[in-house]
Amino acid sequence: MQSHTIESLPRGFVYGGMVAGIKKSGKLDLSLIAATGPAAAAGVYTRNLVHATSIDWCRQRTPSQEIRGVVVNSGNANACTGREGEENNQRLAALAAEKLGCHPNQILVLSTGVIGQQLPMPVLEAAFPRFPELAGTPEAFHTAADAIMTTDQGRKVASASFTHQGQTYAVAAMAKGAGMIGPNMATMLAIVTTDYPLSPNEAYTAVRFAADASFNQISVDGHTSTNDAMLLLSSAVRDEASPTDQDALWAFQQALEDCCIRCAKLIPADGEGATHLLNLHVHGTLGDSEANQVARCIANSSLVKCAIHGNDPNWGRIVSAAGYAGVDFNPNEVELRLNGHLIFANGRPEAFDAATVSRSMQAEFEVAIDLKLGPNGGSARHYASDLTVDYVRFNSEYTT
Amino acid sequence: MQSHTIESLPRGFVYGGMVAGIKKSGKLDLSLIAATGPAAAAGVYTRNLVHATSIDWCRQRTPSQEIRGVVVNSGNANACTGREGEENNQRLAALAAEKLGCHPNQILVLSTGVIGQQLPMPVLEAAFPRFPELAGTPEAFHTAADAIMTTDQGRKVASASFTHQGQTYAVAAMAKGAGMIGPNMATMLAIVTTDYPLSPNEAYTAVRFAADASFNQISVDGHTSTNDAMLLLSSAVRDEASPTDQDALWAFQQALEDCCIRCAKLIPADGEGATHLLNLHVHGTLGDSEANQVARCIANSSLVKCAIHGNDPNWGRIVSAAGYAGVDFNPNEVELRLNGHLIFANGRPEAFDAATVSRSMQAEFEVAIDLKLGPNGGSARHYASDLTVDYVRFNSEYTT
Repeated sequence: MQSHTIESLPRGFVYGGMVAGIKKSGKLDLSLIAATGPAAAAGVYTRNLVHATSIDWCRQRTPSQEIRGVVVNSGNANACTGREGEENNQRLAALAAEKLGCHPNQILVLSTGVIGQQLPMPVLEAAFPRFPELAGTPEAFHTAADAIMTTDQGRKVASASFTHQGQTYAVAAMAKGAGMIGPNMATMLAIVTTDYPLSPNEAYTAVRFAADASFNQISVDGHTSTNDAMLLLSSAVRDEASPTDQDALWAFQQALEDCCIRCAKLIPADGEGATHLLNLHVHGTLGDSEANQVARCIANSSLVKCAIHGNDPNWGRIVSAAGYAGVDFNPNEVELRLNGHLIFANGRPEAFDAATVSRSMQAEFEVAIDLKLGPNGGSARHYASDLTVDYVRFNSEYTT
Repeated sequence: MQSHTIESLPRGFVYGGMVAGIKKSGKLDLSLIAATGPAAAAGVYTRNLVHATSIDWCRQRTPSQEIRGVVVNSGNANACTGREGEENNQRLAALAAEKLGCHPNQILVLSTGVIGQQLPMPVLEAAFPRFPELAGTPEAFHTAADAIMTTDQGRKVASASFTHQGQTYAVAAMAKGAGMIGPNMATMLAIVTTDYPLSPNEAYTAVRFAADASFNQISVDGHTSTNDAMLLLSSAVRDEASPTDQDALWAFQQALEDCCIRCAKLIPADGEGATHLLNLHVHGTLGDSEANQVARCIANSSLVKCAIHGNDPNWGRIVSAAGYAGVDFNPNEVELRLNGHLIFANGRPEAFDAATVSRSMQAEFEVAIDLKLGPNGGSARHYASDLTVDYVRFNSEYTT
């Protein structure tokens, strides 16, 4: 997998990463994303009841207009670690606050890696004084992005910018994980920075919508991790009392979602053993949520994922997965297209040339599944990796 | 996988199977299960919106006290076949009715195999006159059971009997599928016969409870097929007006569920490529349905299934799968046992010897996962196959 790079960076943020020594591999494992002044920040977090102490810490401190930085450690998820884990999380925030010259409550903490093990605090205590100087450059951003990865094969970053009334704003996203969900690894993290002015509430609304359009629409194996989190930080805090420019906010939301979708797709594309990225478009339902429910059901079907891996235009697995999603539709109104080829309509398979469709699947890493369920306006997009022998090997040939 | 046999058979039924010629392999592919008089019959059927025409046929005709037989063809599911498929299903019922000397409405039809292809009607027309004589013997029962299989490796049958007030009653079950869910194959079928007297409504209640305790508690990959069905037939129709012997009915229900659970477990045990059967017991929840929801979530986690395949006591994957099941519990009250070894409690992993637990998993085909979520009385059992390289190979190395 190639390592991606960004093209634009928002004003008001500096970044850095280092080898603290948490990972035995000696790879980058500690990241700082810092605002040069107080930033508006909001997050969406894993809904898993079993979650890391860092998730509770962030939930209690967002939305906010006082955040100064995010500290991320990789290699240890600090989940299922009890009271000692909570204290270690607090100390991690204090160490980052000391480095950035602010209060620990202004620091958000994210951890990712092995669960059920305590953070190596002496290692972290020794690391912070050695932390390299932070910078607002693409190189520093990439180092920070590399330091949040665990078993990822490639860096996951994306950026977008837009101009409104002569002023250019930028959005930059870094993410890790979900691909190569490792043994006991807690997976998806995303941190997005922008210089578009946002109030804390606007940041919260923006991050929720953006998550639903991007990081909530990807899957490798449907297993929700204990540490999933997505944070949005704006270096330009907007006063809630001043009037909102709805056009500018709309342009920002478009840039944010565009950036997040591109970054999010890198995760299933890097899925452990993945040979194809499924690009699922389900539409024609009453509402978007129904389309979403069907898309998830198809994306989580092992049989569908195996068929895509085998370049097999297996309409039966796709249509029957839609049928058990719990959404009402008329099978006779269903139309299924694979890479643009109509293969199922009017309740029956179409007369299509299986070899041609199979060849079109073989030729592309991304396979497009377009499923129309009826005449209505609901729709959803979902991105998933296929299921391969290598996925099973990686996730079973490990023994604690 | 060994082929199982039955020990007792209910009075009032005869069985048979033959090579009709639907399967290119030349294996048995047509079954008849016939009552010697009108039988009480009830069924539970797939909830998939995309389902076979035979499912509609059976739904419209059960519960009933007039059923004379069940005809099952394997090798072709007659699903997604439109109006022509409906007519072929009717004709199949008519052919069986002619053979058994009854009205087509007294025949239940089940089909299993490839979907989206029309039944080879000339082949079936030619087969029925050659159908061997039916018999009420274990050999004939086994032949009928063999003829409903598709890609199953072994026969799936079980029987039970009980004595009430000096009278002995029998229950016999045959099932197919779910194991080796093949390309476009429509999967689980079960037919249970008994001579315990039942009214149609009693049969319906009995089959629903038995399905929930057995065939609804198994999974290979969580993909609900288009043709799943379970039928219960009693050769002794009980008049609804006469008083029910509750003790006898209770004894019958126990025998029925015992027989069905043993038969149902054979399906994930024969799961494509399966090296382990997961025996999941989730308990301590407020109600059974909550326990069931958690059990299904764990059983459908690819990460859990890979870990079991690798003999890896990976508590993190199991506990985190429970955490995203949508059921409320306190992680600090969770206790997880693997093959009897306590490996997680009080929100943290226990100090256990991973090598010992791993060896205990390696030694047994059936691996016991016992998950206590709290102090309450709800519980559920679920049986699932693990996820192996062979499963992925089988389901991806096929191209239409």
